[in-house]
Amino acid sequence: MTTTTTDRILNFSAGPGVMPEPVLERIREDVWNIDGSGIGVLEHSHRGPVIDRVFDEATARVKSLAGLGDDHEVLFLQGGATMQFGMIPMNFLPEGGTADYPDTGTWTSKAIKEAKRFGTVNVAFEGDACSYDHCPDADELSLSADAAYLHYCSNNTIYGTRYAGPPATTAPLVCDASSEMFARPWPIAEHALVYAGAQKNLGPSGVALVIIRRDFMETACRETISMLDYRQHAKNGSRLNTPPVFGVYAMNLVMGWIEDQGGLAAMAARNDAKATAIYDAIDGSGGFYRGHARAGSRSVMNITFRLPSEALEKTFVAEAKAAGMDGLKGHRSVGGIRASIYNAFPTAGCDTLAQFMGDFAARNG
Amino acid sequence: MTTTTTDRILNFSAGPGVMPEPVLERIREDVWNIDGSGIGVLEHSHRGPVIDRVFDEATARVKSLAGLGDDHEVLFLQGGATMQFGMIPMNFLPEGGTADYPDTGTWTSKAIKEAKRFGTVNVAFEGDACSYDHCPDADELSLSADAAYLHYCSNNTIYGTRYAGPPATTAPLVCDASSEMFARPWPIAEHALVYAGAQKNLGPSGVALVIIRRDFMETACRETISMLDYRQHAKNGSRLNTPPVFGVYAMNLVMGWIEDQGGLAAMAARNDAKATAIYDAIDGSGGFYRGHARAGSRSVMNITFRLPSEALEKTFVAEAKAAGMDGLKGHRSVGGIRASIYNAFPTAGCDTLAQFMGDFAARNG
Repeated sequence: MTTTTTDRILNFSAGPGVMPEPVLERIREDVWNIDGSGIGVLEHSHRGPVIDRVFDEATARVKSLAGLGDDHEVLFLQGGATMQFGMIPMNFLPEGGTADYPDTGTWTSKAIKEAKRFGTVNVAFEGDACSYDHCPDADELSLSADAAYLHYCSNNTIYGTRYAGPPATTAPLVCDASSEMFARPWPIAEHALVYAGAQKNLGPSGVALVIIRRDFMETACRETISMLDYRQHAKNGSRLNTPPVFGVYAMNLVMGWIEDQGGLAAMAARNDAKATAIYDAIDGSGGFYRGHARAGSRSVMNITFRLPSEALEKTFVAEAKAAGMDGLKGHRSVGGIRASIYNAFPTAGCDTLAQFMGDFAARNG
Repeated sequence: MTTTTTDRILNFSAGPGVMPEPVLERIREDVWNIDGSGIGVLEHSHRGPVIDRVFDEATARVKSLAGLGDDHEVLFLQGGATMQFGMIPMNFLPEGGTADYPDTGTWTSKAIKEAKRFGTVNVAFEGDACSYDHCPDADELSLSADAAYLHYCSNNTIYGTRYAGPPATTAPLVCDASSEMFARPWPIAEHALVYAGAQKNLGPSGVALVIIRRDFMETACRETISMLDYRQHAKNGSRLNTPPVFGVYAMNLVMGWIEDQGGLAAMAARNDAKATAIYDAIDGSGGFYRGHARAGSRSVMNITFRLPSEALEKTFVAEAKAAGMDGLKGHRSVGGIRASIYNAFPTAGCDTLAQFMGDFAARNG
């Protein structure tokens, strides 16, 4: 196999994002022949022993990394986070009921839009008033009485902000963790539901991890088609129909890699160090770079900043690309620069970017 | 790379099923670095030029193979055929309306169950009365007046039956082609909607191909969440959210391989020859093997038959497995033997099975 790392570049893509190279190496073998079965991973029956092994391992790893006991179900579903935006209120927001949705950016805005089809949405924090530059503290949240649940997004890919901890509420907690799942320790077991599209921190696109507390799952308030009913997926071990086998398989390998790195505390320490290198380049630039997120809300997954002009931003992206750094252009809705440095992004790559930022500022400041 | 075919066995799995080996070879390269981009196919933004190229090619190939003009949209969706069982009536069966559903096996039975949530289902053919041993002729169909659509399954994986042509009706035609998509020429352009989970004949699980006529799509009768609204997917070129990139990418390679084989007419001729080898072994066994499907409805994708006893069936599966032939056990709901020989299944493998069947019958008859 062509396994030199020299033919690969630094990939700052916000998602689908970079994956660990040992995982890619393993995929290249298993696509041809997995577990010595004589059949590739894409070609195995989803009800045979090889895929049973994959699903069992993946489920055990989620439970171990998330610190779950027997109160929660682990599901692997299709449709990504966007499907969850719809499935959650369809199942858990009764007509006439209210759910709390702090709005911290594009993804929560989309989730709010879907939830409004089913019941009342209390926008518990209006992030647009501050250009989504932070996640709310407890005293900024306007909670409703008797909310069916509170839905929040723990890390906001587009604006580069994150919560320091889950919002304080007595309502069942529902978390969209798509862009930071398993990037730091998080009290997942205290949640009614946590979901994450895999394609940022967990693997390829096409599979979403859903962790749901059983007693919450049983409060589903609407009859709907089988594929949108969490109970049906749970009863069938995520194999109500042919599941996205490759996604679950790849996610399992990524979780194994996280374990090899030392687990969530070690990932968090490494992610903090990686982000610090880049935030230091922003803060030490004498104002040439302006970070978007307020200090207490700075994401360690997606680092967003502006330059003195859009023309300079264009030059920055082009020169970075020429230097082997791809995907630094900010989201089309906000502009600027965004460096996405998920779990699998190498530490050395952050140092390379920080060095480049210093050089670029010196040349253009 | 380890590209000897000697470490792979004959895979008769009903799905996920065998894929073309040249496609697997290509995947092994592209997972590491696709198009010389320095980034693997799993790690590219779904809005960047590499994935644009993949989606454009895949769409063009579907249109070419299916013989479509501009009347139809090509969509790549998540949730498999089972999601389509729900989405179709949710969008196109109005309350108080009726749709025709000939019941030819497990998958149409499941589709009927989902459709009944939304309107009236006229079971236009009751296949259980004949143990689902054939697909209905025109004179066996009890059609309703003014059906919103007629839904049928062109090839029934579990029972091993297929239609010779689409059912005769004036209602909009909706076809589940999951287990034979692009295995033979089919008048797809005459349909309102054709869908296929990829994992049998088109690629890995986790993506469904949906071909929908634009004017039919616009008749959607219910507001629903974005992910269940065909118009939203069409408007966004199947990238309403992060799509199942790997599935579309692999499907594109498989379609390229079909083109290399000479297209649908060549595939059909090859598939007929492959199936004939096995049906001949059944018909020439002096009654040792009993085929399930009636002559006019015999599938060329899934060949189902029984042996004189369940004990012999068990021995057959075990001895075949020992001889390097996997996946021959019939579906758990019907028992017996099933040989699934999708497009990518090699001709020589069918000859090997036919030879084995003759030997086995001689030893045990």
